[in-house]
Amino acid sequence: MTHLFLEKAKEFSSIGFEKQAKLLLVTDENVKKHCYPLIQAFLPKHQLMLIAAGDKNKNLENAQAIWNRALELNLGRNDLIIALGGGVISDLCGFAASTYKRGTNCSYIPTSLMAMVDAAHGGKTGINLGGVKNSVGTFTNPKNIYIHVPFLNTLSKAELYSGFAEAVKHGIIEGKSLWKTIENRTTINASSFTPDFIETLIQVKLAIVEADFKESNERKKLNLGHSIGHAIESLYLEKATPISHGQAVITGIVLESFIAHAHFDLNDEDLNTILRLISTHYDWIDIPFSDDAILQKLSNDKKNTDQMLFTLPMGIGNVQQNCEVSALQVAQAIELYAKYRS
Amino acid sequence: MTHLFLEKAKEFSSIGFEKQAKLLLVTDENVKKHCYPLIQAFLPKHQLMLIAAGDKNKNLENAQAIWNRALELNLGRNDLIIALGGGVISDLCGFAASTYKRGTNCSYIPTSLMAMVDAAHGGKTGINLGGVKNSVGTFTNPKNIYIHVPFLNTLSKAELYSGFAEAVKHGIIEGKSLWKTIENRTTINASSFTPDFIETLIQVKLAIVEADFKESNERKKLNLGHSIGHAIESLYLEKATPISHGQAVITGIVLESFIAHAHFDLNDEDLNTILRLISTHYDWIDIPFSDDAILQKLSNDKKNTDQMLFTLPMGIGNVQQNCEVSALQVAQAIELYAKYRS
Repeated sequence: MTHLFLEKAKEFSSIGFEKQAKLLLVTDENVKKHCYPLIQAFLPKHQLMLIAAGDKNKNLENAQAIWNRALELNLGRNDLIIALGGGVISDLCGFAASTYKRGTNCSYIPTSLMAMVDAAHGGKTGINLGGVKNSVGTFTNPKNIYIHVPFLNTLSKAELYSGFAEAVKHGIIEGKSLWKTIENRTTINASSFTPDFIETLIQVKLAIVEADFKESNERKKLNLGHSIGHAIESLYLEKATPISHGQAVITGIVLESFIAHAHFDLNDEDLNTILRLISTHYDWIDIPFSDDAILQKLSNDKKNTDQMLFTLPMGIGNVQQNCEVSALQVAQAIELYAKYRS
Repeated sequence: MTHLFLEKAKEFSSIGFEKQAKLLLVTDENVKKHCYPLIQAFLPKHQLMLIAAGDKNKNLENAQAIWNRALELNLGRNDLIIALGGGVISDLCGFAASTYKRGTNCSYIPTSLMAMVDAAHGGKTGINLGGVKNSVGTFTNPKNIYIHVPFLNTLSKAELYSGFAEAVKHGIIEGKSLWKTIENRTTINASSFTPDFIETLIQVKLAIVEADFKESNERKKLNLGHSIGHAIESLYLEKATPISHGQAVITGIVLESFIAHAHFDLNDEDLNTILRLISTHYDWIDIPFSDDAILQKLSNDKKNTDQMLFTLPMGIGNVQQNCEVSALQVAQAIELYAKYRS
């Protein structure tokens, strides 16, 4: 797997697409409208397939739709499925491709900031099932990842901030020059994300993924903010007004910081530094769910066994996986969050 | 992955099952009735899940049922799904486990001869979708394979002969002492299959699989009989009276032998040797399908691209993959088969 920056879109026609392969390009209506026209002329001949936008469509029905479409087109293992979109599209297509005929080529063209710096990298594919995010999936690297920075100009402020949440996470993990770069940003817009900055964010992730592809231990560091974040995101998904993935991750980082400060080694200064940076960029969302509902989701999160093992920030540049956390500690953090928020 | 012969069923309690793990044992009604009682007393505490028997139930609905049951039981990646049954159960459970939480432990206890000598080994998992066998699946080795030879006494003559078809395939591939052993058998019963004989059959497969796990090239040798066999099996599956997998493979070997003899290097003597051995043990089934129907299924077989690449027997001990075969050559072989049969 390689990732490539497409300084000029014409490179699409010369990199990585095997000439004889059939191409099935999967995207959603929003991406088709805003991003597809920017690269359409440079893509080789392909079939287009549309999936409804949104995380709730990262489901088994759409995986089945991709399998069926691939069968109709008689795609073979050496043909290519292209996922043009954000993390929902790449997770879904990556899963469908990794299981179609026991593994078919798939390349990603991430269109969201979140996908460019995080979701597209590291080989996690998945769908949501039974109300649990990513409960079914595989570890399968795409063939190639094509990063086209001009797509960032098509994103709303909310989408940029959703992606920036993963940058914050990577900054806390790295804790050095990347953290300083992130701390120095007071506002975020498309031009904040240069190829160099994106590359730095990707490298923080890849260094960890390469050490532990199947998430036996070290890779769990990347779950910072995600255990509680996924639980809250899942509960919002069941409501009419889902929140962005980034907003969920930020909320998870805040709650996990409270737990780490109250019961582990996160000191006052680093707690305040994290909360200050987050408050500069993000509103604190409401958490209108009972402790029981959140704990129920947590126990179905694949990153936890019954013992509730969390990844926690012990300091800037010191994130630790497999921290034993109790239901009471989670409930206390939620209470503290509500107090700080009001 | 290892495979272990359970000379004594009591070994189940001491090998490979982690004491703290939750166990979900998946089986079908037939196996539950005939095989489960033979080992039930020796299994650790487990949950039991029943799947309807038969290849048509190796489908997405049952994969989803296993995922949902695993979620209900809150299984984690380090818990264990046990597939107790034939190839249908191990393919289905293997697929569900390999994708549940991106990969959960799964062990196989094969109960059919076919599964003991072939299906359980080599890491192919899969379900049928869109009328195409194994169109969705993964390459994932089980954690362990437990072989319990006394299960063979529970099998019907038809089931033993179905499994023996894979032995015939392995014999043609090996072409030396194993082929002689198989040629010397004039009848087949449960006691024909000693642990040593089963081990020899497994080793023929494993030697090839180890060289090419993801079937880039060499492993395609194991598809002998399966390209045409799968097509005919799929078409029978759509009728009320499915045929056994072994019967389909044997029919595939006969048709592929005709093609290899007419258009490639299979000589008269080896053709007659193959046909004689097969006729000693098997009736030649009717092929009540049009050439077009068979060719349509062949083009959706993942082992073929549009060029129709077949694995063919060029001689006893000389099987070749990636042989280019035309639709006309397939049709001629089917015609020849009908002539020989009558």
